[in-house]
Amino acid sequence: MAHIAVQEGLPGITGLLEFRLDSSKPIRELTQILLRGPSTLTEADRELIATYVSFLNECIFCTSAHSATANLLLGNTEIVESVKWNLSQAPISDKLKVLLIIAGKVQRGGKNVTDEDIALARKHGATDIELHDTVLIAALFCLYNRYVDGLASFTPTDSSFYTTLAKRLVERGYVRPEGGYTVYPPEN
Amino acid sequence: MAHIAVQEGLPGITGLLEFRLDSSKPIRELTQILLRGPSTLTEADRELIATYVSFLNECIFCTSAHSATANLLLGNTEIVESVKWNLSQAPISDKLKVLLIIAGKVQRGGKNVTDEDIALARKHGATDIELHDTVLIAALFCLYNRYVDGLASFTPTDSSFYTTLAKRLVERGYVRPEGGYTVYPPEN
Repeated sequence: MAHIAVQEGLPGITGLLEFRLDSSKPIRELTQILLRGPSTLTEADRELIATYVSFLNECIFCTSAHSATANLLLGNTEIVESVKWNLSQAPISDKLKVLLIIAGKVQRGGKNVTDEDIALARKHGATDIELHDTVLIAALFCLYNRYVDGLASFTPTDSSFYTTLAKRLVERGYVRPEGGYTVYPPEN
Repeated sequence: MAHIAVQEGLPGITGLLEFRLDSSKPIRELTQILLRGPSTLTEADRELIATYVSFLNECIFCTSAHSATANLLLGNTEIVESVKWNLSQAPISDKLKVLLIIAGKVQRGGKNVTDEDIALARKHGATDIELHDTVLIAALFCLYNRYVDGLASFTPTDSSFYTTLAKRLVERGYVRPEGGYTVYPPEN
């Protein structure tokens, strides 16, 4: 049971975001901009950053939700699993690998990111905005993971929950459905 | 020097927020709602949460900025210093002390917050919304601290910088000045 009285039937982050709508509005907007807005990083790249940071923070709800979303965008489960468990050997570009290493350092604390990390990312083609967005997405998921676990919101264990949620996050993004929720994830 | 090309003369978080205005808008809005919006927690209480989490994350810019802001709101420096270095003996209410302990646990990771912590906070009068806001403010500063240090933004060492900044944050809050910045902190 969550530490505070959230609406029944809204697991994970959703019950919390519905608990206080004025603060959830900018959180949703920020997420939509960073994860779905125009970017030279693909949506899958950005979901991988969200997944990897949530995994390092051991937030089961967020890791499951964003793993499923990245899997759907990528059309396979191999990339997500290798990023989580064996990043150095993951079948992704060198640029994305270094950005994920930077995201992992941000997860542990911003000061861990070194000039050498940044130089290596640039060598592989990373731009200022990509570096900025990588750090900010990693920082945002450090917020989300703590929000979800700090208030002990309910974490479904049925994987079909996350595949349905992922479908919604791919098709509709992070925008709140008009009028809120009756079932979750919403069917359309 | 920051890891990315921010506008010269804008230290700490400000250069980063000016670097990407579309993502900074919801970050500023969220901060204004949580730290300056209507609440049964005082502005000083909320600045103490921001200060304590930033201190635990060893983010010198944020710790200095929010310490100065809390000092200005409280009219003394004793409370901030005791919260940072000796929380159990700090001259604050039992309720605020438990909320700060919860914030400190969120800083280390949300799962550290126990049912017992929540029960103790409630025993001292904490409400659902106060518990929610404590966790979310702590999580937000885990974002800020990582954003600031992950991109290595410039940290002024002159304490007068932070007292001027604190004056602005008390008088104007976290809203961006119309037209952005020419000097920082802005004089009005």
